[in-house]
Amino acid sequence: MRHFTSVGDVSDINALVTRALAFKKDPWSKRELGQRRRIGCLFLNPSMRTRLSTQVAAQHLGMESILFNVGSEGWSLEFEDEAIMSGSTVEHVRDAAPVMANYFDILALRTFPSLQNLKDDYSELVIRQFIRFAGIPVVSLESATLHPLQSLTDLITIRECIEANPALQTRKPKVVLTWAPHVKPLPQCVANSFSQWVNAWGGADFVITHPEDYELDQRFTQDARLTHRQVEALQDADFVYVKNWSTYRDYGKIYCNDPGWMLTHEKLQVTRQAKVMHCLPVRRNVELSDEVLDGPHSLVTRQAANRVWAAQAVLAEILENLQHP
Amino acid sequence: MRHFTSVGDVSDINALVTRALAFKKDPWSKRELGQRRRIGCLFLNPSMRTRLSTQVAAQHLGMESILFNVGSEGWSLEFEDEAIMSGSTVEHVRDAAPVMANYFDILALRTFPSLQNLKDDYSELVIRQFIRFAGIPVVSLESATLHPLQSLTDLITIRECIEANPALQTRKPKVVLTWAPHVKPLPQCVANSFSQWVNAWGGADFVITHPEDYELDQRFTQDARLTHRQVEALQDADFVYVKNWSTYRDYGKIYCNDPGWMLTHEKLQVTRQAKVMHCLPVRRNVELSDEVLDGPHSLVTRQAANRVWAAQAVLAEILENLQHP
Amino acid sequence: MRHFTSVGDVSDINALVTRALAFKKDPWSKRELGQRRRIGCLFLNPSMRTRLSTQVAAQHLGMESILFNVGSEGWSLEFEDEAIMSGSTVEHVRDAAPVMANYFDILALRTFPSLQNLKDDYSELVIRQFIRFAGIPVVSLESATLHPLQSLTDLITIRECIEANPALQTRKPKVVLTWAPHVKPLPQCVANSFSQWVNAWGGADFVITHPEDYELDQRFTQDARLTHRQVEALQDADFVYVKNWSTYRDYGKIYCNDPGWMLTHEKLQVTRQAKVMHCLPVRRNVELSDEVLDGPHSLVTRQAANRVWAAQAVLAEILENLQHP
Repeated sequence: MRHFTSVGDVSDINALVTRALAFKKDPWSKRELGQRRRIGCLFLNPSMRTRLSTQVAAQHLGMESILFNVGSEGWSLEFEDEAIMSGSTVEHVRDAAPVMANYFDILALRTFPSLQNLKDDYSELVIRQFIRFAGIPVVSLESATLHPLQSLTDLITIRECIEANPALQTRKPKVVLTWAPHVKPLPQCVANSFSQWVNAWGGADFVITHPEDYELDQRFTQDARLTHRQVEALQDADFVYVKNWSTYRDYGKIYCNDPGWMLTHEKLQVTRQAKVMHCLPVRRNVELSDEVLDGPHSLVTRQAANRVWAAQAVLAEILENLQHP
Repeated sequence: MRHFTSVGDVSDINALVTRALAFKKDPWSKRELGQRRRIGCLFLNPSMRTRLSTQVAAQHLGMESILFNVGSEGWSLEFEDEAIMSGSTVEHVRDAAPVMANYFDILALRTFPSLQNLKDDYSELVIRQFIRFAGIPVVSLESATLHPLQSLTDLITIRECIEANPALQTRKPKVVLTWAPHVKPLPQCVANSFSQWVNAWGGADFVITHPEDYELDQRFTQDARLTHRQVEALQDADFVYVKNWSTYRDYGKIYCNDPGWMLTHEKLQVTRQAKVMHCLPVRRNVELSDEVLDGPHSLVTRQAANRVWAAQAVLAEILENLQHP
Repeated sequence: MRHFTSVGDVSDINALVTRALAFKKDPWSKRELGQRRRIGCLFLNPSMRTRLSTQVAAQHLGMESILFNVGSEGWSLEFEDEAIMSGSTVEHVRDAAPVMANYFDILALRTFPSLQNLKDDYSELVIRQFIRFAGIPVVSLESATLHPLQSLTDLITIRECIEANPALQTRKPKVVLTWAPHVKPLPQCVANSFSQWVNAWGGADFVITHPEDYELDQRFTQDARLTHRQVEALQDADFVYVKNWSTYRDYGKIYCNDPGWMLTHEKLQVTRQAKVMHCLPVRRNVELSDEVLDGPHSLVTRQAANRVWAAQAVLAEILENLQHP
């Protein structure tokens, strides 16, 4: 693996999940792999799980991680080609990225979409420009439209549940991605990325449910079944992934904030004792009720804990590729 | 020791002080103790000495420290049970703390009081919720009402002075905590905590002096002698601890900002060449005069330097307890 | 070397450059030198290259680096002697610096000028007070008037070019420092410091060109040839260093923002295929055109990459001096 920005960078999803689970059993098994290597983690936006789990994963691999809050600790970056930089941006990615490439072996990058301009966001300008000008491996710590480390974690967590439950090994588990209410417009990243990974994995019966007007980009949802009826979607579900996102087509809006879409204990009755997933942070009693989050079916802490193993598996693959390209 | 949030977590104060002083002589003597261990340090508020000395102590113990500015680098946290999170807080401690517990072996936490609501602050909601939901050892890097690492440092510094001065070994030294003026309302933490530790230690004749209306919570001051006459309190003092705090009962106010309470060289004439202590940062020529701070009796730099050994003794105890609970 | 705040701290510039280039060939050759040593890096202002390259250099030397954003993570500092601290500054350098000296072996410091008061800035109050009160080696990560790590990098980069080009070994290369337009008033640090180092080095035919009113402090420019005619200055140049600065005498102003001073490909025709240098960040198409920055003569990425070796050479000298003063 050279870069890690979407499921397209992964040649074998199941093998990567297997590797992550092996690291979970033996975190320090590759502690020499990152010796004298450095990962630079650039944050253009806030991050908690991603930030911390990447540091932990790097430590397990014996690699130095250097973190940098781009906007507050350094200079605001320009990403447009041929910009006349007489405005508020201080440094162009054309100049910053090659410098980073001299300091680090791997560059990891966190950026959010503007939610103002669909075309700009969905072109993934920021991460694309870093890849173009850095010339070293680039890892997405969430980008404008995708969050692949989160999706890898999600598949790791689903695999763990399947391995622990023989009933799930005899049929394709039903995985439901359900929209949830929120108080502000959020990116589509987690929903896009989860859809992309579940589709590429192919191991699930995959259903997406959301209110009208919240259609996601079909590039990511592909052949997943779509329904606006949440109850119907939840029927017989094994896994329910809860997530808010803002509108895609009339971009970045909140139309429906119907509290009725909040996932509750009652709604889960029609499922097959479905496990409930969320990437966190979660707005309690807005997206998901306390009773569900604190109940026995919640996987949210485990998902977040598995972030370490997801990051570690990805970094290990990239480090090995640096040694033997 | 499992947690470290107040003197109540310490079984033997003198033994802990002794251990800290042993680390001061031989900083790297336990450099294997923290191998493959991580401390996560969460900052909900600014910190300089605490932040830096904890990192240094962790390095001496061979432990990785990961620092995280919660508000600016991550998400603002919610601490109230059953909150409907449609406001400005993005993540609940119920979700964040268990995740941290998966990333770290020890969780350290810096938080200030609101100074708006006595009951909320004095219930220590923030640190209590972290302990409740993390399930791993929690270390206070200053909380709403206490600052135990500071108080441990203070006792270490007093012990050093006693050991260096035979006259102080034949009688209980007189320790005076005196209120000082300031320009803004400050927490009661350092004063509460110093009182709590000096009382629990029992090795001093302890007097507290402050203007009327500045009474501290009696849970911490206990049987210390109280007087509103600073000069009387200073009489024959061996140690004078200078600190501002805002009002406790009519909570978080400044009533008296009488510059007359500033400690000066002249006032110290009635003491027994008392050593002068302050936790820093100090407002020079408001709380304490330059002449005192820069004079031969000031212990402020030594106190701050001893922060390393206080943190190291506490972390060592917690790490040993993790190995052999 | 004890401190590193200007070229005056360097006994042999060529030897230091040679050492830096040796580290570039073998980064880990002195990985034991910094064992159990710590550098504290204090940032009173933003930094990207300096911040990251110092961390990388410290890692190569086996030294722990601890970074601290003074204003946002800690307390705003007071630098004036005898200040009555009833205003916005929370801690005096007299108190902070000696504490740092107890936590670290080396103290590195980034600060910008106010550009409000020439005398204050040019007295280098901030770094001078840190040296005065810390008592440990202090390294400038850019100060009010100078940026010596940048200048060392610049000479390293010039030396590399000379070594690669026999034609430059038979005569003194012509080095031109040219003012460039910008949108806001910038410090004179890089221009001052580059002038100071090139003069002290003595290996170049040195010319400075800028619009009227942009004279630099003669302490730094010394006997360099000055001209207001950029074209004349560029004639036969081997190296062109491009940099904006605000006015020095009528301090901190922008008078001329003549876009005509922007360096372009066309202007470079009169040079001897001059290499183009800039410290970064650069305002593209304001200070320098895209065609120049992205062309074959640009050294800007190499300069920034060499920051690691400059920092490493300086830290190595200071560490050795700590071992054998």
